[in-house]
Amino acid sequence: MQVEEYLRGDDRVLVPLGSTEQHGYLSLGVDAILAERVSLEAAEPEGVPVLPVLPFGLTPTFTAYPGTINLRIGTYLALVRDLLDSLRAQGFRRILLVNGHGGNQPAAGLAAEWVGENPDTQVRFHSWLVDPEVWGLAGSIASVSHASWVENFEAVRVDGVQVPAEPKALVDQQALAVANPARVRELMGDGPGGGAYQRPDEDTRRVWQAAVERLRQMLTFGWDGAGEGE
Amino acid sequence: MQVEEYLRGDDRVLVPLGSTEQHGYLSLGVDAILAERVSLEAAEPEGVPVLPVLPFGLTPTFTAYPGTINLRIGTYLALVRDLLDSLRAQGFRRILLVNGHGGNQPAAGLAAEWVGENPDTQVRFHSWLVDPEVWGLAGSIASVSHASWVENFEAVRVDGVQVPAEPKALVDQQALAVANPARVRELMGDGPGGGAYQRPDEDTRRVWQAAVERLRQMLTFGWDGAGEGE
Amino acid sequence: MQVEEYLRGDDRVLVPLGSTEQHGYLSLGVDAILAERVSLEAAEPEGVPVLPVLPFGLTPTFTAYPGTINLRIGTYLALVRDLLDSLRAQGFRRILLVNGHGGNQPAAGLAAEWVGENPDTQVRFHSWLVDPEVWGLAGSIASVSHASWVENFEAVRVDGVQVPAEPKALVDQQALAVANPARVRELMGDGPGGGAYQRPDEDTRRVWQAAVERLRQMLTFGWDGAGEGE
Amino acid sequence: MQVEEYLRGDDRVLVPLGSTEQHGYLSLGVDAILAERVSLEAAEPEGVPVLPVLPFGLTPTFTAYPGTINLRIGTYLALVRDLLDSLRAQGFRRILLVNGHGGNQPAAGLAAEWVGENPDTQVRFHSWLVDPEVWGLAGSIASVSHASWVENFEAVRVDGVQVPAEPKALVDQQALAVANPARVRELMGDGPGGGAYQRPDEDTRRVWQAAVERLRQMLTFGWDGAGEGE
Amino acid sequence: MQVEEYLRGDDRVLVPLGSTEQHGYLSLGVDAILAERVSLEAAEPEGVPVLPVLPFGLTPTFTAYPGTINLRIGTYLALVRDLLDSLRAQGFRRILLVNGHGGNQPAAGLAAEWVGENPDTQVRFHSWLVDPEVWGLAGSIASVSHASWVENFEAVRVDGVQVPAEPKALVDQQALAVANPARVRELMGDGPGGGAYQRPDEDTRRVWQAAVERLRQMLTFGWDGAGEGE
Amino acid sequence: MQVEEYLRGDDRVLVPLGSTEQHGYLSLGVDAILAERVSLEAAEPEGVPVLPVLPFGLTPTFTAYPGTINLRIGTYLALVRDLLDSLRAQGFRRILLVNGHGGNQPAAGLAAEWVGENPDTQVRFHSWLVDPEVWGLAGSIASVSHASWVENFEAVRVDGVQVPAEPKALVDQQALAVANPARVRELMGDGPGGGAYQRPDEDTRRVWQAAVERLRQMLTFGWDGAGEGE
Repeated sequence: MQVEEYLRGDDRVLVPLGSTEQHGYLSLGVDAILAERVSLEAAEPEGVPVLPVLPFGLTPTFTAYPGTINLRIGTYLALVRDLLDSLRAQGFRRILLVNGHGGNQPAAGLAAEWVGENPDTQVRFHSWLVDPEVWGLAGSIASVSHASWVENFEAVRVDGVQVPAEPKALVDQQALAVANPARVRELMGDGPGGGAYQRPDEDTRRVWQAAVERLRQMLTFGWDGAGEGE
Repeated sequence: MQVEEYLRGDDRVLVPLGSTEQHGYLSLGVDAILAERVSLEAAEPEGVPVLPVLPFGLTPTFTAYPGTINLRIGTYLALVRDLLDSLRAQGFRRILLVNGHGGNQPAAGLAAEWVGENPDTQVRFHSWLVDPEVWGLAGSIASVSHASWVENFEAVRVDGVQVPAEPKALVDQQALAVANPARVRELMGDGPGGGAYQRPDEDTRRVWQAAVERLRQMLTFGWDGAGEGE
Repeated sequence: MQVEEYLRGDDRVLVPLGSTEQHGYLSLGVDAILAERVSLEAAEPEGVPVLPVLPFGLTPTFTAYPGTINLRIGTYLALVRDLLDSLRAQGFRRILLVNGHGGNQPAAGLAAEWVGENPDTQVRFHSWLVDPEVWGLAGSIASVSHASWVENFEAVRVDGVQVPAEPKALVDQQALAVANPARVRELMGDGPGGGAYQRPDEDTRRVWQAAVERLRQMLTFGWDGAGEGE
Repeated sequence: MQVEEYLRGDDRVLVPLGSTEQHGYLSLGVDAILAERVSLEAAEPEGVPVLPVLPFGLTPTFTAYPGTINLRIGTYLALVRDLLDSLRAQGFRRILLVNGHGGNQPAAGLAAEWVGENPDTQVRFHSWLVDPEVWGLAGSIASVSHASWVENFEAVRVDGVQVPAEPKALVDQQALAVANPARVRELMGDGPGGGAYQRPDEDTRRVWQAAVERLRQMLTFGWDGAGEGE
Repeated sequence: MQVEEYLRGDDRVLVPLGSTEQHGYLSLGVDAILAERVSLEAAEPEGVPVLPVLPFGLTPTFTAYPGTINLRIGTYLALVRDLLDSLRAQGFRRILLVNGHGGNQPAAGLAAEWVGENPDTQVRFHSWLVDPEVWGLAGSIASVSHASWVENFEAVRVDGVQVPAEPKALVDQQALAVANPARVRELMGDGPGGGAYQRPDEDTRRVWQAAVERLRQMLTFGWDGAGEGE
Repeated sequence: MQVEEYLRGDDRVLVPLGSTEQHGYLSLGVDAILAERVSLEAAEPEGVPVLPVLPFGLTPTFTAYPGTINLRIGTYLALVRDLLDSLRAQGFRRILLVNGHGGNQPAAGLAAEWVGENPDTQVRFHSWLVDPEVWGLAGSIASVSHASWVENFEAVRVDGVQVPAEPKALVDQQALAVANPARVRELMGDGPGGGAYQRPDEDTRRVWQAAVERLRQMLTFGWDGAGEGE
C-alpha cells in the first residue's frame, strides 16, 4: 500500500542485480549482498523503493567452483524483462538497475531494447563498483580485482575464515580471456583476481562512501526532463 | 570452498522459492523471507546448505496491487531449470525446493520433467506452509488464508503499520476463481483472504515449529536409498 | 459457420485436455478419450461447442513405458496459450479447460497468466475425475488410483485384453515421489497405482454420472455476472 | 504393453498431422479426421501403430473464420519435435508423418533438422492428399481445391448441412497470395477454393483408395536398408 | 536518409535470403550471392531498395560438408520475423522475400503467420531460381539440380578451381529423402545433385535473364490494390 | 572442399559481426562492410577463412531512423550460438568474433556461456575499431564518434552524397543514456555523434592500418597453448 502512495509522487525505483559465485574467502553472495546494501543506503534519503536483489546472474566462467550458480543468458534476459514489465505496469517510469557483477552486462542491452518498446520509460544500468569514478578511486589506493580487498567488506566476510596476509600475484588476463571454466579455476586458484586480500577498513569505507554518493547522483540527476529527482 | 568440502560427504541442498507480492499490511516479501528463514532453521542442525531465496515468482492474480512482481511462467520455469542444472553440475543430487507461494506450483511440474532428464537426481517440491500437516494445524487454531494471521510473523511486519483488530470476512472463492486482476483487487480489497489479521504469538509460534519439524523430516527421510539424510 | 452463429448468443467453450500414456491394461488414450467424452456429454444439452481433445500432455514420470508421449512443459504451455488465443480471437470469452490428466496441472498456472493479459475473459481449469466431489464419491466405493477400476470404462478397454481379477497392492507413494522414470516403472510394474483393476459397471456408471453432472454445473454456474450459462 | 512387444520386431510408426479450420460446409475437423483415418487404414495390414492425430496445426490464413484454431509456428515445431523425441526414446526409428493440411509444411523442415541431430532415425513427411499421384488422379476427375468435393467424404459431413448443388468459381489465387485473413474471407466467402462441392461417392472412393495405396507404399518401401517394411 | 525519402512515394522492399553451404566446386556463398544480385538487378529500374542478403539459412542436410553453416529453424524464423518487424516499423508495407535456397521454405510459413498479425502488410515469398517459369526454362535446356550448371554463374566460381568436364549421374532422390547428413554426403559425393557441371554462358545467361524478368514482374504486379508497383 | 583441407592444418576462423543502421551520410552498411573488410585483410596472409559478415545486429536506439534493422536480443544470441555450433561441428576450435558495432556486445556474454558448454574451444570477441589501441590512435588525431570521420572510409561512402564541411558539435552523452528512439533522433539529428564528418584519407588510412595490425595480432597470439597461430 505504501508503494501505491509513493507512486502518486514519484516514479523512480532501484533494482539491485547480484550473482551467487565464488569470491575466494568471502561469501558466495558478495555481489548480491553489496548491490542490495548500496542501493538501500543510497535510496534511503529520498525514500525511493528498492526491489529485493536478484541473487543469481550470469557467471559462466566460474562454474568450476562449487557454490557458483549460473543462469543461462536467455533466462536472465527474460527475467530482467519481466521485472521491467512488472515495474512499468505498476507505474514506475525511471528505473535504475544497480549492478553488482560484471557478467550481468548483457542486461544493459536488454534494457536498451526494452526502452525502445516502452518509450515512456527511462532505464539506466549502473555498475556500482566498477563505475569509473568508484573503481578509479579504489585503484588509486591499491591494485584492485575480483574478490580482492575492494570487495572485502564486513558484511560479506564468512565467520571463522581467515584471508591470506600476503597479496596474491595478479592473474594473467590474456590467458583468462580464452580459458574454459576448468582452466579459469587453474588460473585463479583460490578465487580472487590478485592484489591484497584485505586492507584497513578505512580504505574500503572510502570506496563505499564514494559508491553511495555516486549512486545517489545517478538517482537524482541525469533523468530526462528532471533537474533533480522526483 | 566450504561447499566443495560439504559435497564430499553429502549431496542435499535446499532451494527456497519466494514471491514479491501484496500481503495486506505485511511486507511484500512475506513469501520470500519466510521460505528462506524456515529453510535456514530446518537445515541448521545438519549443516545442509541453503541457496539464497528466489525472491520473485508467479503471481498473475495480484498484479493490480502495486508492489507485486510477476514473472512470466516460461521465465520462471527456465529459472528453476537453471538453478537445478547449476546445482547438479556442482555435485548436488538431492534437492528440496522449499516453496513459500502457492502460485509457484508449476515449478513442481518442471522438477518432474527435469528428473526425467537427470535420472541420477531426486527433487522434491515442498510447500512449507500449506503442507497438509502444517496448514491443518493452523486451521485447527483459527480460520486461515493468504496474508492472514498465519503469515503474520514478526519478521514480516512493516514498521509503523497497524493491522485491523477485527477479523475480515472470507473472500468469495468462487468469484476469485474467474476473476481478472482488477476484479481480484475489488474482491480482496486490503489484501488478505479473510479471517483474523493477527493472533497471539504463541499461535504463530506453534505453526512455525510444526513447519520447521516437517521440513526437517523432509530433509532427512523419504529419499531413495536413504533411511536418514546424508 | 455454426460456430459463428453460436457466438452471437453464447461465448462458452470446452477444451478437453488429455494425455497419451500407459494405463496398465487399458488404452494408452484413456485420459484423452474420457476427457473428450465427458465434455461432449456435459455440453450436449446446452449446445456448447467442444474442441477436439488435445491428445498429448505432460507425463514425464511414465516415459519408461513405451507408448507414452511426453511433451516438454514449455511446449505444452505454448500450446494451451495458442488455443486460448485462437478461441478469444473468434469471440469466446468463457473457457472451461476439462482436464483428464493430473500432470497437466501447470496449464492452470498458464491460464491464470493468460487471464491477466486478457482481462475480458474467464478461464477455469477443471480436472473432471479427480475433482473432490467425483473422486470422493469414487473413493467411497473402493480404493482409487491411476489406471485402476475408476478409469476402466468400456470406451477405453483394449480388445482381447483381460485385466487381473485380484486387486493390486497400492504402490508406495513416498517412493514414487522421488523416483526417476525407470524407478517409477519398477515401482508400478504393470502400470496401475493399485486397487481393483475393474469393478461392476454400475459403479463406474455412478462415477461417470457424477462427473457429467459436476461438469454441467461448472459450465452453467460460477461465471462472473452469470446466474446461469449463456 | 503391446507397443513394447511390437518394438521388438519393427520400428515404424505413423503420426497423423491435422488441423481444425474452416472447410466450408464440412466439419472443422476434416484435416484431422481424414489424416487419422487414412493412416489407420493404411497401417492396418502390417499392424504398424498410429499415434492419435494432432488435431491442431498452422492455418494463419483462415483465422477470420470462427472455428479455426491456429497454432503459432514456434509452438507447432516444438510440438512435432517433442513427438519425435518421445517416439525415438521408446525405440521407434522410422517415422512417417502423415500430413493432412498444407499449412503444416514447416514440419518437414523441422523433421530434416531433427534427423540431423538424430542420425539413427529416418523421418518422412507425406501429405496424403496433395501427393502428386493422388492429387493428380483427383484432378483428372474434376477440378480440385480446399474443401471442395475432393475432401467431401462421408466421415466429415455435418449432419443436416446441405452443400450447394452448383460448382463454385475458382478463387483468385494471385489475390489470395497477398491477402490478410479478412481479405481471405472476402475472397473465399463460404470457404472452399472452388469447383464442385460434392461428387458421386465412387469418385471420392477412387481417390481414397489411391491415397491408401500410396501411403502403404510409403510405409513399406523407400526406407534406407529396407526392401520391405519391418 | 534516402530510405526516408523513398518511403514517401513507395513502400516496397526486397529481402534476399541466402545460405552458406556446399555447392560442389562453386563458392559456399552461391545462394547468398545470387539472391542478392538478382534482387539488385531486378530492383534497379524502379529504385526499390534491397536489404543486404541474409547469408545463413536452413541447411541441415549438408552439415557433413565443412563450410556449411546451418541455423536452427527456430532461430531462422525469429530472424525473418525481426526483419519483417523492422521493415514495417520503418513504413514498408509490401515486402518481397527473394529466396535463394530451398531449405528456407519454412520462412514462407512464418510470413503467412506474420501477415495475420500485421494485416496492413503484404509479403510474398519467391524462390527466384526454382520458380516454375525459370526452373522450367532451365530444364528445357538441360537436366538441372543443386550446384549443377544452372547455378554455375561467373560470380560464384572459385578462382583456380576446375569443374569436371563430364556430367554427373543424378543422385538417387528416394535415398536422399531418408538420409542423415553423413549418408547425404555419401550419396552426393563432390556435392552437386547431378547433370552437367557447367554449360556455355549463353545458357546460364538465358536463365538469368528469365529470372530477372520474373522477379521484376513479381515486384510490379500482383500486389493488392495495385495495377502496377508504387 | 578447401575448408576441409584447411581444417587438417589449422582450426581458426573469423566471424565478422555487423549491423545495418543509420550512419549519417554514409552507407547503412558501414558496420557490416568494414567488419568484413578488415577481417579479410587481416586474415589474408595466413589464409584463415572468414565467414560472410552477419549484416544485422542489435541497434534498438536507432530504430527511429528508417533503414535501420534491429534484431531482438534473443534472436541475435540464438544466431551467434548457431554460428558457433556450426563452426565447431566442422572442426573449428579457435573462433575470433570481429565486431563492427557497439550494440552487439551481448554476443560476448553468449560466447562466454558457449565456451562453458564447449570447453574444447576458444572464442574471443574483438571490436575492431573501438579496441583501445585503435580507438586511442584515432582519438589522438581528432575527436571520434559514431559515423564521424573515423568511419568515413571510401568503401562506405554513398555515391553523390556530400558530407558537411564543418564539424558537428558532440551530442550530449548523458541525455542519450536515457533517451528512447525518438529522442535519440532528436538529439543526433543527421546521425553522427559529432566531430568532423570527414578527414584526409591519410588519417583514416593510419587508423585502418592499425586496426588490421591489431586484428592480425589477435589472430596470431594469445590463444591457449599457442605461441603463434596455427
